[in-house]
Amino acid sequence: MLDSIPSFARLVAELAKFPGIGKKTATRLAFFLLRQPRAEAEALAGAILELKEKIGFCSRCFHITESDPCPICTDPGRDEGLLCVVEQPQDLIAIERSRSFRGRYHVLQGALSPLDGIGPEQLRFVELLQRLKGSAVRELLVATNFTVEGDATALYLAGQVRPLGIRVTRLAHGIPTGSDLEFVDDATVNRAVEGRRDL
Amino acid sequence: MLDSIPSFARLVAELAKFPGIGKKTATRLAFFLLRQPRAEAEALAGAILELKEKIGFCSRCFHITESDPCPICTDPGRDEGLLCVVEQPQDLIAIERSRSFRGRYHVLQGALSPLDGIGPEQLRFVELLQRLKGSAVRELLVATNFTVEGDATALYLAGQVRPLGIRVTRLAHGIPTGSDLEFVDDATVNRAVEGRRDL
Repeated sequence: MLDSIPSFARLVAELAKFPGIGKKTATRLAFFLLRQPRAEAEALAGAILELKEKIGFCSRCFHITESDPCPICTDPGRDEGLLCVVEQPQDLIAIERSRSFRGRYHVLQGALSPLDGIGPEQLRFVELLQRLKGSAVRELLVATNFTVEGDATALYLAGQVRPLGIRVTRLAHGIPTGSDLEFVDDATVNRAVEGRRDL
Repeated sequence: MLDSIPSFARLVAELAKFPGIGKKTATRLAFFLLRQPRAEAEALAGAILELKEKIGFCSRCFHITESDPCPICTDPGRDEGLLCVVEQPQDLIAIERSRSFRGRYHVLQGALSPLDGIGPEQLRFVELLQRLKGSAVRELLVATNFTVEGDATALYLAGQVRPLGIRVTRLAHGIPTGSDLEFVDDATVNRAVEGRRDL
């Protein structure tokens, strides 16, 4: 079986560490790599090593970046008065993809979750407050997730930032584009009715 | 977006080459790697490179192996009179896992599929016939898959090997363990009735 091919078993074990990838899928991926030309496998291994070598966090906004400060922080075409707070780099990327925001960002690297031992000290709150003090920021757009943790983080942020005289806003909560009302969950419909707007 | 982080984009592109892994899953895996300690990423990259360096095909049975001939071919405890033919190394591993067979193997590295241009010359048929001639093999157990290609390969094999005076058998075709008859497909029930046995 696999015990007699230790290098294969080792790769399967490494691949199975990925979230959502079990032993069966890992075996399938390993067999795929085995059939690929050596150059393909080397390209993948090289990309993994390069990721850890080149990517770090921006010292201003804490987004992932190859240069510090990151290209978004140094882009002169962005509005200094608008700052968007997100939980993770993935969230920042989603907002950039929507092409709807031309300000700057701050990545908290998580959300408040007291049950998991994540308080403000575990996140990039201190750095955010330091950025805001004496800055040109007029509006802080809170784009944390619409989960219990994201809601708690948004409320905490509002309490900390409003005293600085900065407007605090949050992404609209409602029915997503393309949905049938019939299949949208109750909590979302509830929030959409509460947040209804004049046509 | 991702264009500004080329090393990240490159890893996502490499991971998305895996079968069944799209761009979204690849991005999720890349973010996971980013959060892992450097040693973990190096272990994965190392395992990929080691796979291509160490693993080749056994020159006797064409199973994957780190040593040639492979541990199964050199195991003195196996019955030389029994040879099991499979399509792929995965199939051999499945039979070994079942602990039901103590003979040797021959991996064809595929199945006949004229529409895809795969004839006997593209598979390890010649090597199989050479192994059989003048050997101690009494029985050839054909364990190709129960697909159109696997069936065709089994028939072709039987036609080639029977003239050598070797008994040719095939895995039993029927209802799998743990199934409800109600949910088994018609073709399988049909074969199970045809192949019924005395109790």
